[in-house]
Formats: sequence, structure tokens, C-alpha cells
Amino acid sequence: MKTIVLKFGGTSVGSIKRIKKVAKIIKSYSKKYRVIVLSSAMSGTTNKLISMSKKISNSFSDQEYDALVSAGEQISCSLLAGQLIENGIKARSWMAWQIPILTDGKHKHSRIKFINNRIINKYLRAGGIPIIAGFQGVNKNSQITTIGRGGTDASAIMFAKFLNADRCVIYTDVEGVFTTDPNKLKKAKKIKKISYEEMLEMASLGSKVMQPHSIQDARLNRIDIEVKSSFSNKTGTLITKRKNAINNRIITGISSTDNDAKVTLLGVKDRPGIAATIFKPLSENSINVDMVVQNISSNGKETDLTFTIKSSDLPKTKKIITKNKNITLKKMVFDKNVSKVSIIGVGMVTTPGVTFRMFQALAKQNINIQVISTSEIKISVLINRKNAMKAVKSLHAEFNLTK
Amino acid sequence: MKTIVLKFGGTSVGSIKRIKKVAKIIKSYSKKYRVIVLSSAMSGTTNKLISMSKKISNSFSDQEYDALVSAGEQISCSLLAGQLIENGIKARSWMAWQIPILTDGKHKHSRIKFINNRIINKYLRAGGIPIIAGFQGVNKNSQITTIGRGGTDASAIMFAKFLNADRCVIYTDVEGVFTTDPNKLKKAKKIKKISYEEMLEMASLGSKVMQPHSIQDARLNRIDIEVKSSFSNKTGTLITKRKNAINNRIITGISSTDNDAKVTLLGVKDRPGIAATIFKPLSENSINVDMVVQNISSNGKETDLTFTIKSSDLPKTKKIITKNKNITLKKMVFDKNVSKVSIIGVGMVTTPGVTFRMFQALAKQNINIQVISTSEIKISVLINRKNAMKAVKSLHAEFNLTK
Repeated sequence: MKTIVLKFGGTSVGSIKRIKKVAKIIKSYSKKYRVIVLSSAMSGTTNKLISMSKKISNSFSDQEYDALVSAGEQISCSLLAGQLIENGIKARSWMAWQIPILTDGKHKHSRIKFINNRIINKYLRAGGIPIIAGFQGVNKNSQITTIGRGGTDASAIMFAKFLNADRCVIYTDVEGVFTTDPNKLKKAKKIKKISYEEMLEMASLGSKVMQPHSIQDARLNRIDIEVKSSFSNKTGTLITKRKNAINNRIITGISSTDNDAKVTLLGVKDRPGIAATIFKPLSENSINVDMVVQNISSNGKETDLTFTIKSSDLPKTKKIITKNKNITLKKMVFDKNVSKVSIIGVGMVTTPGVTFRMFQALAKQNINIQVISTSEIKISVLINRKNAMKAVKSLHAEFNLTK
Repeated sequence: MKTIVLKFGGTSVGSIKRIKKVAKIIKSYSKKYRVIVLSSAMSGTTNKLISMSKKISNSFSDQEYDALVSAGEQISCSLLAGQLIENGIKARSWMAWQIPILTDGKHKHSRIKFINNRIINKYLRAGGIPIIAGFQGVNKNSQITTIGRGGTDASAIMFAKFLNADRCVIYTDVEGVFTTDPNKLKKAKKIKKISYEEMLEMASLGSKVMQPHSIQDARLNRIDIEVKSSFSNKTGTLITKRKNAINNRIITGISSTDNDAKVTLLGVKDRPGIAATIFKPLSENSINVDMVVQNISSNGKETDLTFTIKSSDLPKTKKIITKNKNITLKKMVFDKNVSKVSIIGVGMVTTPGVTFRMFQALAKQNINIQVISTSEIKISVLINRKNAMKAVKSLHAEFNLTK
């Protein structure tokens, strides 16, 4: 009998009614598979607990934060296990410490290092369905450590790894991964199969279905992931290795962002290593510099440097650059009205002219490109934010994603 | 430095505002004592969790019930520990599994068998204040087992025992133990000191301050308990051994019940062992028979038997007696309009005439006594419920409890 990991997000177990529905989904798998369930907290619970901690302090202890919020999964898992037992199914809720799920020990942002599969395997062999708390683990000092937002996905992937599951199904409140955000573009189509690499680009670029590090973990461990909705019975999206995800499209998806900001440093005194001098203190302050373009200025002694960061990092970035005594510049300008539009697809590796088609399609719409960056399977352009949807729409048509 | 256990009930930690107040109380002890804190769930939390489980099933799994409701203490303890840390005090929340607190394994009604004091002692020596989840323990299978309603008191007493504390302070929402229910009789006075034995009678007879088995545990382990309010700064009641609790009163307190029912079996065919034949099946069904009186009927071959039970056990009792083929009786009658009024005091052991004074005081009020039962330190009478308050009032005056 094959083993499958099912993960249910917060909205999927958001009420007793939803928990009853999820119990039925689990039952439908239990005839064919050994089932391992990972559950998030009921939607709203975690935020409610966090808001209580904020009434105490905005710098509430990380250690107690983890103890506090992990109560959310304890509630949802015991209710779900209780529902399954009520339906005549052998089930039991498991918290991280009962297994245990061991983490690297950091509070609020832990990563799972090891899962002891002995006790869960024994329970599976006895015909039970373990309902396991996602998002949490324990460190060497027997303290609860959570693994950050979206952590239950990571928990599910790690269970698939350490319990040699054949597949991991991520049940969420969207139907799968779309060619672009279906809330913004009605013509967006659900993608049947996508490679880990493409999904990673989609995830980092603003598609909110899964956290990048969970996809990366799945990729490294060759675990097939199916993303689907617990609110419908439709087929979802399979995230799998590249050779299984082949389709005859050049481009698999298009993403656009709305939380980027552009920083331009004008008249920077040029010398070898100047870029490192500028970017090192930013990196040390966890500011992620994304797209970079440097122009040599007319006189050859000065240069203009443009780069993008997350909008939320803008105030910190201003401070750090102003304080940096190792650089001399004439002026610093900012632009929050930008959007990064990207086309993603493994198909572009073997197809010449993709860049040209993209630029031509944007030019036809009179959209000016400010910065360009490319990878093997992705081309991103920075444009004025007001043109973002027009760009996505025209590229969606250009690369025939609607069909 | 002496060790003290502080226990806070649900209303004491019922809001963030209350948690801030409790943190101040804890701090005030931390200068003089090594402090161990036991906390209940925030008031309302447990009931909310239970009501969710009831939406799933009225016979919700006991195992999952324990996992579910114990999340309540996890929330209150981490918030309280977080508040102390915010106030610059070294603190950490501890769940049962982290210590561990071992129980006999029964779900919903466990008893604490053993507490490993190693890790908590180490933390105390390091100057930390452990904030420990009451009401919960773990069994040999690493499952959470709760110890029933009012269980945090029991947890506190057990911590005082296993960590050799010098005193246990039970912080609650009442100011202490009163001579009788202050909500019913305004003249009721707070008792400064009371013996375990008297408190046990007060507790079993309807004074809701503490559960009898917690008092019994304290008595067996000679742990002084102070009951006081976290809502005021007033001195509470000290529950201690008899020789420390001596006062010059004959009677320490008066209690009355309103959940008793009287059952009378008329014309029972008399033979040796008939009482056992009647009571054995009741006991086997966990029905607690309290007061019993048997009259030989006129012809000598039949007897009338009267006894009291909890009102809630009445339907079960009717069924069991009707089904009992080993007894023959003419008629079974019930009366729910009864109240058991008791006077309690170690002083009565050495004072003759207490019974007479009680009966005379009731007779003066024209109150008819239906059943009597006595112990070394208690006299109880069953009367019509409508006379209960009149009885309590007159006895309160008769034995000078108002002064």
C-alpha cells in the first residue's frame, strides 16, 4: 500500500463544518493509501493568538510566541481526529513533541531537521490515521519552535521525505497554480503540471500558493506535490520534476508584483568594488536586492546605479545608504510605482526569440521597460505599475496561455 | 530561600489586563521566595473548546478531548510567561510533557502520580520562574491526560509536594472560605484559619472554593494552603493542620445544598442484607448514596427506607431500583425539594450539647428535620428546601459566627 501525505491549510479546517468536509476527503483516500495528515490551525486562530501577544508587547518573547501559537494546531488536530473517530475511523492527533519532529532550534523561523518515523510508522501499520500538527517542531531543549508562516507546507514535505511517501497533496483554498493570478485576469488557466523550477520562480515572484523553501525541499527530495482545493472536487496542479512536467508551451506562467520599489543612485563616484560597497551593508541588514543595472555616466568617473528592493525595506535602505561613508553620490531617487512582470517557462531554454517576442509585445502596448533581468527559465522586466495588468494581459495572449 | 507555589484560576488570568495584574502579584513574591506558578486556562477558553467538540459529537473522543482542552493552559501560560519576560523577569512556560507530569493515564479524570522535579529545580536554581500548565499531565504513551474540573488546584498541591514547597497559595475570585455562602447570607464572615478536616466537610457539602480531593492531597502531604483573591489585596483563609487552626469557636462553618433529592422506599420486604441488595447496584453505577435512615414498619415484616442522592442521579436511580428483582416494595416516592444543612467544626468534638443546640434552634423556627447524619466534626440535617436559608441564618446566629 502506498503512503500519501495530505496537508490542510487554515481555511480548509476553518470551522466545524469544514472539518467535517475534510474528514470525508481523508476517508476517501484511506481506502487506497496509508494516509498521513498535516493540519494548520483553524483560520483566524493564529492571528487571534498573535493579537493577544501584541497586547502584552510588540516585542513579545520569541520562545513564548512559539508556545502560544502552536496551541492553534493542537486545537485543529484534536478536533479533526475527534471527527474521524466519530466517523468510525481510527485516528489520533499528534503534536510535534509526541513524535518528535526535531528542528534546528531557532524560534519563529525554525527548519525541520529530523522526524522520527518509528512511532508514526507503527501507528500506520496498525491502521491508524495520524493527524499531525503542522508548523511546529521541538528543539533539543524540549521547547516548541515554529517554522514560520506557511510552515505546514514545509511540515508536509518533510513528512513525505522522512516517511517515504509517494505523494504529497496540499489542500488549500485555491484550485491550483494558474498561468497568472486568476483574481486579476479572468482568462488565467489552471496549469495541470509544472516543474519544481518553474514553480519556484512563480512562488518567489508573487504567486502565493506555496512558500519557495517548501518547493525547494520537495525538489531536493523528488516528492510530487499536488496542489488542490478542499472546497471543490476539481483536479489540481501537479508540481513535479522537469521531465514529468513537459508540455508543448514555451511559457508556463506569468507573474507580476506590486510590492517592489526602485532605487536610483545618481552620480556615484566610480571605483573598483563600488557595487559591493553599496550592497554589502544592505545584505547584512537582510535587505534583498533584486534587479540591478549600472550605467557608466558620460564623464567616465561617475556611474548611475539602479536596483529594486521590497517597498517595505525602503526606509531602512535610505538610512543605510545615507550613513554609508564609503560612497559619494550626487542624488538618490526612489520610485514605488513599479511592478516586475515575469514570464516563466522551461520551454524558453530550447526556444529562441522569446525575449524578442516579450519586448515586442510590450512595445506594441507602449510600455517602457526600465530594468531587465533574466535566468534560464525566466525573463523579468520592471515597468510602471499602472501598466502591469496591460502587460500581463498582452503577454498572456502573446504566448497563447489562454488555450 | 523558601519555595512557594502560586496557583491562578481561570478568572484570575481571564484577560490580558488580568494577566498583567497577576504578573505583578508574582513579582511581589519573587523577592522573598522561589516561586512556582500553576495557571488555569483563561476563563471561557475551556468552555469554548468544549462547545466546539460538542458540535462534532456529544460523545467526543476522551483522548482528543484532553488534547483539545489542554491547549487552553498552553495559551494562558505562554501569555503569562511572556508578560513576566516583558517585565524583565526570567520566566518560561512549561507544559506537562516538558517536565514531565505523569498521571495514572485515565483520560478526563486522571490523577497525578509523579512529577519529575529535576528540570524545574534546575530552572529555579537559575533564578527562573516556571509558569506551569495546570489541569494536565501525560501518561506512559505520551498522551495528554487532564485531571478533571478544578484540576489546577490538584496540580498546585502536587507541585508543592514533589518540589517540597513550604506553602501553596490558591488565587481565585473569592476572598477565602466563609462561615457560610456570602452570596446567600450577607452576615457570613471570612474564616482566617480552618483545618483540612473542616475544609473537606465544607468542600464536600457545597462550598465551591476547592475540590475535596485537592484538600485531601494537601492534608496527606501536610501542605499549608492559603486561599485568596487575585482581585483584592486582602488576607485570605489558611487551610492547615488541626492544631494550627484552633480557634475558640465550636462551629467553624455552615453549609447548605440545593442539589440533593430524597428517595423513600415504602413497604420493603425486610430480610437480612436488604440494604446491601438495594445499594450495591447504585454504587456500581457511580450513584453516591449520602444520608440513610431505615424504620421498621408496624408489622415487623416490612421496612421503610429513606436515602438521599444527587438530584441529577434521580432518573438513573429510579430505573435501577425498578429493575432490581431482588427487592419487593409497595411504593417508591421522591422529593427534590430538600436541602441538607450542616454545621461543621472541630470544636464540637470537645463540646457537649452541640446537637441539642442545633435541633433546638431549628425547632424554634418550626423547621422539621427529615433525616439526620453525623460525623466527628459535622452534623447534617435534611429539611424542606424552602426553609434552608432560614435554618442557615438561625444556626449562624446560634453559634455566634457573625462575630
